Amino acid sequence: MEVFIEPIGRLINEFSKLPGVGKKTAQRYAYKIINMSEREARDFADAIVAAKQKVHFCKICGNFTEGEICDICRQRDPSVICVVKEPKDVVSLEKLHEFKGVYHVLHGVIDPMNGVSPNDIRIRELLDRVGEGVTEVIMATNPDVEGEATAMYIAKLLKPLGVTVTRLSRGIPIGSELEYTDDATLARALIERKEI
Amino acid sequence: MEVFIEPIGRLINEFSKLPGVGKKTAQRYAYKIINMSEREARDFADAIVAAKQKVHFCKICGNFTEGEICDICRQRDPSVICVVKEPKDVVSLEKLHEFKGVYHVLHGVIDPMNGVSPNDIRIRELLDRVGEGVTEVIMATNPDVEGEATAMYIAKLLKPLGVTVTRLSRGIPIGSELEYTDDATLARALIERKEI
Repeated sequence: MEVFIEPIGRLINEFSKLPGVGKKTAQRYAYKIINMSEREARDFADAIVAAKQKVHFCKICGNFTEGEICDICRQRDPSVICVVKEPKDVVSLEKLHEFKGVYHVLHGVIDPMNGVSPNDIRIRELLDRVGEGVTEVIMATNPDVEGEATAMYIAKLLKPLGVTVTRLSRGIPIGSELEYTDDATLARALIERKEI
Repeated sequence: MEVFIEPIGRLINEFSKLPGVGKKTAQRYAYKIINMSEREARDFADAIVAAKQKVHFCKICGNFTEGEICDICRQRDPSVICVVKEPKDVVSLEKLHEFKGVYHVLHGVIDPMNGVSPNDIRIRELLDRVGEGVTEVIMATNPDVEGEATAMYIAKLLKPLGVTVTRLSRGIPIGSELEYTDDATLARALIERKEI
């Protein structure tokens, strides 16, 4: 005799596919669904299908969009392009309400160890965008080995095109303490110290 | 400008309804859905709707079932009934492959502070089941205030019916250390000590 009846086992199995969700958590989620009203459960299911059907990639920047071109590309200053690894990085930056330019989502970073070459990410598309009118490209890939290498690689390709290439500053996080800052970050903060 | 486009925002909102899921986790789940194939996303949505539609409560024990009567009630020894708070407690016990009797799910415990009276849980149904042939009722509610009170309340009602009422033993968990056992548990383990 199975511990779970089929429809519950199947739902637990689906929830287990979500990142960081084990059997126990998936079980809790499944029980929550069963305790919902029929209408709530249907709304949940519809949201999944709708997200999958309606969300596309912007033809210009590669970010999520419902139409062909995303709102950011349609409405904002195209002279400054911020290059990120993934759509979720756009969300992190947009939350600041600080950046007024547009984005370019690479959909990955160069990672030869895992078989990702420069041709596998949207570098070609970035070079095509950097024509007249673009004054600055900000590299905002993650400050890890692959992110840094990708930023350097792209910077090398962009510089001959006469565009300013910058990247996010690295250093000790605001509100942290020197004592608890890792060596690599502290060393970087020292090297990139700024006059006050 | 919204940080998330509508279909993603809506999906994040749905995932946020799951227990213990905050905005950030819901966002990760939503991205996972968007990265699935259309077929996978549809299967996920179908599993939610199917679970809601196909899962009912067993007319006898109150556990989840697809039909009218659950497999446990149909196939197992009805002379021993194990009383639990929720369907998930049945799962915990079934995993042991130890108990050969049937269950009775109360769907709650008596909790006057939160307005749950004896009439709000399936006590009446339990009394109706305890007729000829039932030799023992095992109280397996949680060892907290409400669980204990509910067990005592039900035991009082059952005893005049001439049935043996037992409850799960309380004590120090296997593999733990005295040093780290809380006082209430340790005191209980001392009071309920067994001859060896």
